[in-house]
Amino acid sequence: MRVGVWLVGARGSVATTVVTGAAALRSGLLPPVGCVTETPGFAGVGLPPLDALVFGGHDIGGSPLVERAEELARAGVVPALLPAAVTGALTEAEAEIRPGIGGGPGRGSQRGEAERVIGDLVSFRERRGLDRVVVINVASTEPPFEVRPEHADPAALERAMDGPEEVLPLSSVYAYAALRAGCPYVDFTPSTGVRLPALDELARAEGLPYAGSDAKTGETLVKTALAPMFAARALAVRSWSGTNLLGGGDGETLADPAAGESKKASKDRALAAILGHRVEGETHIDHVPDMGEWKTAWDHVTFEGFLGVRMTLQFTWQGCDSALAAPLVLDLARLTARAHEAGESGPLTALGFFFKDPVGGGEHGLDAQYERLRAWANGLGVSA
Amino acid sequence: MRVGVWLVGARGSVATTVVTGAAALRSGLLPPVGCVTETPGFAGVGLPPLDALVFGGHDIGGSPLVERAEELARAGVVPALLPAAVTGALTEAEAEIRPGIGGGPGRGSQRGEAERVIGDLVSFRERRGLDRVVVINVASTEPPFEVRPEHADPAALERAMDGPEEVLPLSSVYAYAALRAGCPYVDFTPSTGVRLPALDELARAEGLPYAGSDAKTGETLVKTALAPMFAARALAVRSWSGTNLLGGGDGETLADPAAGESKKASKDRALAAILGHRVEGETHIDHVPDMGEWKTAWDHVTFEGFLGVRMTLQFTWQGCDSALAAPLVLDLARLTARAHEAGESGPLTALGFFFKDPVGGGEHGLDAQYERLRAWANGLGVSA
Amino acid sequence: MRVGVWLVGARGSVATTVVTGAAALRSGLLPPVGCVTETPGFAGVGLPPLDALVFGGHDIGGSPLVERAEELARAGVVPALLPAAVTGALTEAEAEIRPGIGGGPGRGSQRGEAERVIGDLVSFRERRGLDRVVVINVASTEPPFEVRPEHADPAALERAMDGPEEVLPLSSVYAYAALRAGCPYVDFTPSTGVRLPALDELARAEGLPYAGSDAKTGETLVKTALAPMFAARALAVRSWSGTNLLGGGDGETLADPAAGESKKASKDRALAAILGHRVEGETHIDHVPDMGEWKTAWDHVTFEGFLGVRMTLQFTWQGCDSALAAPLVLDLARLTARAHEAGESGPLTALGFFFKDPVGGGEHGLDAQYERLRAWANGLGVSA
Amino acid sequence: MRVGVWLVGARGSVATTVVTGAAALRSGLLPPVGCVTETPGFAGVGLPPLDALVFGGHDIGGSPLVERAEELARAGVVPALLPAAVTGALTEAEAEIRPGIGGGPGRGSQRGEAERVIGDLVSFRERRGLDRVVVINVASTEPPFEVRPEHADPAALERAMDGPEEVLPLSSVYAYAALRAGCPYVDFTPSTGVRLPALDELARAEGLPYAGSDAKTGETLVKTALAPMFAARALAVRSWSGTNLLGGGDGETLADPAAGESKKASKDRALAAILGHRVEGETHIDHVPDMGEWKTAWDHVTFEGFLGVRMTLQFTWQGCDSALAAPLVLDLARLTARAHEAGESGPLTALGFFFKDPVGGGEHGLDAQYERLRAWANGLGVSA
Ligand SMILES: NC(=O)c1ccc[n+]([C@@H]2O[C@H](COP(=O)([O-])OP(=O)(O)OC[C@H]3O[C@@H](n4cnc5c(N)ncnc54)[C@H](O)[C@@H]3O)[C@@H](O)[C@H]2O)c1
Ligand SMILES: NC(=O)c1ccc[n+]([C@@H]2O[C@H](COP(=O)([O-])OP(=O)(O)OC[C@H]3O[C@@H](n4cnc5c(N)ncnc54)[C@H](O)[C@@H]3O)[C@@H](O)[C@H]2O)c1
Ligand SMILES: NC(=O)c1ccc[n+]([C@@H]2O[C@H](COP(=O)([O-])OP(=O)(O)OC[C@H]3O[C@@H](n4cnc5c(N)ncnc54)[C@H](O)[C@@H]3O)[C@@H](O)[C@H]2O)c1
Ligand SMILES: NC(=O)c1ccc[n+]([C@@H]2O[C@H](COP(=O)([O-])OP(=O)(O)OC[C@H]3O[C@@H](n4cnc5c(N)ncnc54)[C@H](O)[C@@H]3O)[C@@H](O)[C@H]2O)c1
Ligand code: NA
Ligand code: NA
Repeated sequence: MRVGVWLVGARGSVATTVVTGAAALRSGLLPPVGCVTETPGFAGVGLPPLDALVFGGHDIGGSPLVERAEELARAGVVPALLPAAVTGALTEAEAEIRPGIGGGPGRGSQRGEAERVIGDLVSFRERRGLDRVVVINVASTEPPFEVRPEHADPAALERAMDGPEEVLPLSSVYAYAALRAGCPYVDFTPSTGVRLPALDELARAEGLPYAGSDAKTGETLVKTALAPMFAARALAVRSWSGTNLLGGGDGETLADPAAGESKKASKDRALAAILGHRVEGETHIDHVPDMGEWKTAWDHVTFEGFLGVRMTLQFTWQGCDSALAAPLVLDLARLTARAHEAGESGPLTALGFFFKDPVGGGEHGLDAQYERLRAWANGLGVSA
Repeated sequence: MRVGVWLVGARGSVATTVVTGAAALRSGLLPPVGCVTETPGFAGVGLPPLDALVFGGHDIGGSPLVERAEELARAGVVPALLPAAVTGALTEAEAEIRPGIGGGPGRGSQRGEAERVIGDLVSFRERRGLDRVVVINVASTEPPFEVRPEHADPAALERAMDGPEEVLPLSSVYAYAALRAGCPYVDFTPSTGVRLPALDELARAEGLPYAGSDAKTGETLVKTALAPMFAARALAVRSWSGTNLLGGGDGETLADPAAGESKKASKDRALAAILGHRVEGETHIDHVPDMGEWKTAWDHVTFEGFLGVRMTLQFTWQGCDSALAAPLVLDLARLTARAHEAGESGPLTALGFFFKDPVGGGEHGLDAQYERLRAWANGLGVSA
Repeated sequence: MRVGVWLVGARGSVATTVVTGAAALRSGLLPPVGCVTETPGFAGVGLPPLDALVFGGHDIGGSPLVERAEELARAGVVPALLPAAVTGALTEAEAEIRPGIGGGPGRGSQRGEAERVIGDLVSFRERRGLDRVVVINVASTEPPFEVRPEHADPAALERAMDGPEEVLPLSSVYAYAALRAGCPYVDFTPSTGVRLPALDELARAEGLPYAGSDAKTGETLVKTALAPMFAARALAVRSWSGTNLLGGGDGETLADPAAGESKKASKDRALAAILGHRVEGETHIDHVPDMGEWKTAWDHVTFEGFLGVRMTLQFTWQGCDSALAAPLVLDLARLTARAHEAGESGPLTALGFFFKDPVGGGEHGLDAQYERLRAWANGLGVSA
Repeated sequence: MRVGVWLVGARGSVATTVVTGAAALRSGLLPPVGCVTETPGFAGVGLPPLDALVFGGHDIGGSPLVERAEELARAGVVPALLPAAVTGALTEAEAEIRPGIGGGPGRGSQRGEAERVIGDLVSFRERRGLDRVVVINVASTEPPFEVRPEHADPAALERAMDGPEEVLPLSSVYAYAALRAGCPYVDFTPSTGVRLPALDELARAEGLPYAGSDAKTGETLVKTALAPMFAARALAVRSWSGTNLLGGGDGETLADPAAGESKKASKDRALAAILGHRVEGETHIDHVPDMGEWKTAWDHVTFEGFLGVRMTLQFTWQGCDSALAAPLVLDLARLTARAHEAGESGPLTALGFFFKDPVGGGEHGLDAQYERLRAWANGLGVSA
């Protein structure tokens, strides 16, 4: 099985780390640290091997991948000498990057944009002789988009897309196009993407699986590992406050209050779901450009124990954003491709392990999500 | 089912909080925060109700329980007005405290000490009309005891106990006596207790269950909630360093290097078991008298992610030692009594959720332990 | 010298702790921990002794001081048995609390409010035979007030106060009244208070000293102790981010974005002043009611060292708000009374040690402020 | 003034960063971040300019400086491209490195070793036409050395050095030789070095200044910035606990309990000196090889405030060891050379700002040390 991995936001930090890292792993230069699908628990799942992956994508700007990789090396995200060692792979992926949509005024109808994306996807699949293409949105997080009645009505949506108005956020145009092109779709970001009733219906109609949303790689990852501890021990969490300091392009986008809101909301859901009740406390996302590709999360939890005694837990997580994200993109590509092969369609709730805000609901506790993921992956068959 | 809870170390902080708290819960003064066995997942297990528990125990000194409870109230461990509200229960338990063993020179043979303990236990069971008595060791942690050949040989052990030498550490004399008196035994501390081949054989021969050892209420609790996160995400932990600051009497005992060693060793096993490999880093236990009944653990973890990038997690846990421990004593008493009723014998590996160093091995990851505990408890039958 | 201490916000947490604590110290029940003016460096300054202080104040509501003190005891802010031991002192102060201004509609002109305050102050001074009365604003922080031309023009201000409009924020009405009554005035909060050109002029004309504003008791205290370290070592701070979690009434007030803004602004000035340049980073103030009288500040600092290497400092400060504030109120009362006696007038810049946003400018580094305070206090003479 | 900087331990991490960094600054490639002597407060002191410094030293092994610099670049201590840019300077310094003493058995008398060191120093000064040479010990920390009567008696010391026994630790042989060669001496490490009465006498007799010991670059730096805050605010520190995690070669040496002890002892003195009383708490130094050139210190402080309320401060310092140390070596070289020129002799107590354990005593509070340093440096004259 040859699998295309189509990255929306193909010249971003995450995408560049994905392409650079996949090349490093393929050549055996580095071990697959951080890749869940390379651990023994997934050995018998029948996943496409790493060297079956072919990369392409959309972006609306950005320097060529070779330059981006060198920038990341200077920032310590990838080893200093790696970009030079995998120039071939970077150049090959760069050649498959097409201009993204939404890059300015005079854009025409969303139908037109969608058709262009469909064309790019189909051409990629055919030219490269791929069995399937998984589309993964790793573009900048969008501001929240107003809810519209067409979002819940496939026929109305089709009509509106012919008109002059923007009926969908860009991430949803990409998702729509992916589904129309027969491609499974993964929302790595908190943007709307495929999470609209009309697109869910479309995915099911086309027999396509999708997954999302918003990869958990920091504060929420730790939160969903720790919160079940309090629940299991009957300790009553009273407040959970958090501050996230982000550098990089992503920090800048999320510092915009509206986009930040959409990220915060997805963070909050997990906690209430695990503890069974809402708790006090706010979550902040600050842009601190000086931190570059690094992020720090500080969380402060107050909880009540036996006889009302108050206690506290704090943690500080200091991570490299793209290094945390990139191996999950590879995991998601492989698992979603395999799910497609197995004939799954609609939301892949078993992939909740990877996301802050799992589509289709399900468990939020990290361990429970992991067990579910493993069981599901090992139980996948092959569609007739 | 009326159940005796016999606390070795009956006037310690943990024991006093247990008796005070059980009275508060029984009277409905406070909700059962921190009691795992009071959560919905254990509703159908058939546990003895909290008001079926009758307290007694051994101690080698200490102020009466009423005074100890008032001390704990001044320290903020139990609510200021609670000791006055439950004086009756405290006085009742105080009346069942007998002089412990090992309190000085001229002690005679260990056989003699064991017989005295057996006598106390049988008398308690009979006078108070109890269906069973669970013995729980919450006494000061002992220094490590030398391994002796008699520990592995029941017959040799019996012979040696008649002699003048100390063949067993005190915790094991209590465990031996408990088993001989027909009582299940729980090691809440890292002391040797029941963990000797000869005592394991004795327990099985008597059809008695036992559990241990060393309740996990702080650093190791958080560690075993967090370490599975790294494993599940294929992140390679490289070092895990920890410092524990303890006030109180327990801190003083553990500050003695030898006793501290025995606690540290039990902390270390869990991590290697979860991650599948040993990691760098040391664990310190410091006695800081100014911290009184409070403890603080700071842990620092370095881990490697995708393409070799180094990242860090730190946490600080600030807890009240006895408030964390006491509800677990109630949980262990009820679950062990129920296991006894169900005819279980030997090590209760399903209780690993509660311990730093679970007897009989099994899972160390907290979530996995919790799921196992629940399944086991809900599957207990009744012995013929 | 008998000195009146007139607390605006007399039934708040800070004020109640002040009155309770002063009584405890006076009776020798507890040592004067936290009182700067009780340290050897101030022994020869000629300060009024603690038992020369007589308390009174304004409040617009609140329970009687005896009840408030018991609430604070339950929260662990004052020792459990202290309120009962100092009931006399609490009752005496309660008898000197007068209804504050601004408590609702139909208030009449600000002139009328000011006259009422003046009357209360003069009556207090005369009835109690006081040499002087220091007015200290420890009321809830106000939202920022619009700048008006009358604020810079004493004559215009006088005229406007006769009119129906609110030309001054309430804190400034109190400050105006204090000065008109011949009382030195201290701004313990970030509210406007005396910090208006017209009031500064009035203070100088009346020969009265004033001080402020916004007592530093947490994040900013630590910040101004640490920032000089970076400056002295030529380490280049690049970002300084902070999150403050506050329970209590104060947290609630500051959580209102407008009031919060005024607090944040005063926090920011200090850092830039010490480092000599602005740095990245935001400061958050969250209201976490569960934290009650406690506050936690977490600060995260990134800095550049030799050859551009990036490093980090974090701190977590966990303090009891009112316990940190109350001794400073006593210090400020005594020092300001002494300055008045010495004939000082206008802003007491030497008191900058106590404030986040020192009136009249001056040093922000904590050590430098301390040295200046000591030198100034020890150099005070007596006015003719 | 041309000044030689003779580094004992010349191929260590600190020494290599010094030589690499000095070259970078000299060429204007990077700004002098971290160099105290390059700040405006020292502009008029008449210090030797950075390009007047000429490097040499002793080492008992190690790779050539060019290789060491490349290692440091890979570890992120110096910028990736810097070693290549300053190869000339590295090669020049490498040519001035001589075999150190103590490198094995059959060493002969300490007299012989001292004479060899003297020869190296004199030759360096003459061949390179230097006005003076400052010897700075940046070699591995030694284990504590037994106190001997000869240490207090110059004549006895001279006699003993002719004998076969080791009367001095190696660091003191270097110090002795430096003084005999007419060179000021700086103890950057906690080793004994010049801190023996007989060597103090020698220094004074030769009219030579010396300084030390043990540069403060981490936990103690922050501690001495923070402790004065508690003192100034009359807050009663009750415990101060610390854990230091060190990678690198230095971590390995200090992990040896004996050497660690000597470092811990110097850490402890500062705190008691500032607070005026001893406090509870221990300091740990752990070797965590995975941390490479980085170190982390976590400190936990409990303190008592008004009316006995307990509060806490924690900090985490994450620094690059050699990057913190190297600019101080440059500062010390320049200031000590200038003091020599000015005719100072004996311990330079005004340099206490740089050290954990200042020779000759003096202030420990960081700000007070800084003010003293500045005043002293700006007051230096020129010796006749
Ligand atoms: N790094 C993590 O740990 C993590 C975790 C969860 C989610 N995410 C999300 O992943 C996304 C990518 O993060 P990043 O750090 O790579 O950001 P980035 O800013 O480096 O890259 C985003 C890329 O998207 C491109 N882009 C923007 N609009 C586009 C459009 N309309 N069409 C096509 N491309 C477009 C940009 O030009 C840019 O190259 C963000 O939305 C982030 O929130 C990241
Ligand atoms: N609190 C926790 O979170 C926690 C967690 C795990 C384990 N533990 C263990 O629980 C134990 C009790 O802790 P604590 O805080 O109550 O300590 P504590 O010092 O307050 O109480 C210990 C009691 O044991 C008694 N004792 C000592 N030797 C005895 C003997 N030979 N026979 C009978 N009694 C004896 C002492 O007199 C004392 O009253 C300790 O071993 C501790 O390590 C506590
Ligand atoms: N605690 C600290 O460490 C600290 C530090 C700096 C500043 N402060 C400031 O001190 C003030 C008091 O804090 P607190 O914790 O006591 O708050 P609090 O809410 O407990 O008390 C404030 C009191 O002010 C009274 N009040 C409100 N409006 C008034 C008016 N117009 N006239 C008279 N009284 C009025 C309220 O009724 C209340 O009793 C706050 O402004 C706070 O920001 C506190
Ligand atoms: N880095 C800091 O922040 C800091 C702060 C205070 C003190 N120090 C001290 O500075 C010293 C150097 O630290 P480092 O990180 O460079 O260590 P390092 O291990 O990298 O270097 C030490 C060097 O000393 C050499 N050496 C050992 N014995 C010698 C001898 N007898 N004669 C000559 N050379 C000898 C070694 O071969 C090695 O090259 C250590 O003692 C350390 O404790 C460092
Ligand atoms: Na978990
Ligand atoms: Na300072």
